[in-house]
Amino acid sequence: MNLDFKFNADGLIPAIVQEKGTNRVLMMAWMNKSAIERTLETGFMNYWSRSRQKAWLKGETSGHTQRVLRWFVDCDADTLLFEVDQEGGACHTGYASCFYQAFARDGSPQPILEIPVFDPQKTYSK
Amino acid sequence: MNLDFKFNADGLIPAIVQEKGTNRVLMMAWMNKSAIERTLETGFMNYWSRSRQKAWLKGETSGHTQRVLRWFVDCDADTLLFEVDQEGGACHTGYASCFYQAFARDGSPQPILEIPVFDPQKTYSK
Repeated sequence: MNLDFKFNADGLIPAIVQEKGTNRVLMMAWMNKSAIERTLETGFMNYWSRSRQKAWLKGETSGHTQRVLRWFVDCDADTLLFEVDQEGGACHTGYASCFYQAFARDGSPQPILEIPVFDPQKTYSK
Repeated sequence: MNLDFKFNADGLIPAIVQEKGTNRVLMMAWMNKSAIERTLETGFMNYWSRSRQKAWLKGETSGHTQRVLRWFVDCDADTLLFEVDQEGGACHTGYASCFYQAFARDGSPQPILEIPVFDPQKTYSK
């Protein structure tokens, strides 16, 4: 497999993940070469966790896996985009997307109007 | 303006840009604090160019500006998402989106089926 992308100094490349159908952006996370390989081999999103410094199968604890439907690289070959079928919610807070916090033009945070799709306390204490 | 986001060691934060209506992801670029401030002041996307090491108003040469409609931060406060009204095409290659190159499950690039929305040779030689 020829994964000739531009990885950063840490060997990582950002991966944007969007939901099939709505195209809603669910999250952005980082992949190294083996995360990409595991993702393509299994068909489910795998990442590299920078905070935990370990490989990470999305949904390994929560069950909220992301099945890959299509994937793309950008013109500079330094960012990936995955279209996925998301099980449950993408965000560890319980929201469908990690981008639930909107801001106004003046930079002030707006009220969060959407409702979480799962209860993180129940999901992560299993 | 309180822009209390997590910038990286270079003072940058990734910004994902998506098109209003279709929600198509158009590009990912980097912003520093002043790029965010200029974006909010003017209503048009401004970035920091890592390759050219300078502030960059999207569309300054091509005219392909991006008017901001909504913007979000993710749960970790380390990635921004902007919904924009894109003039012309987002990609310097002439495609509507920088993510025009799809791959198959085995990692092989797929034929590009979409048609460029502008001619970069004409646009950038003005």
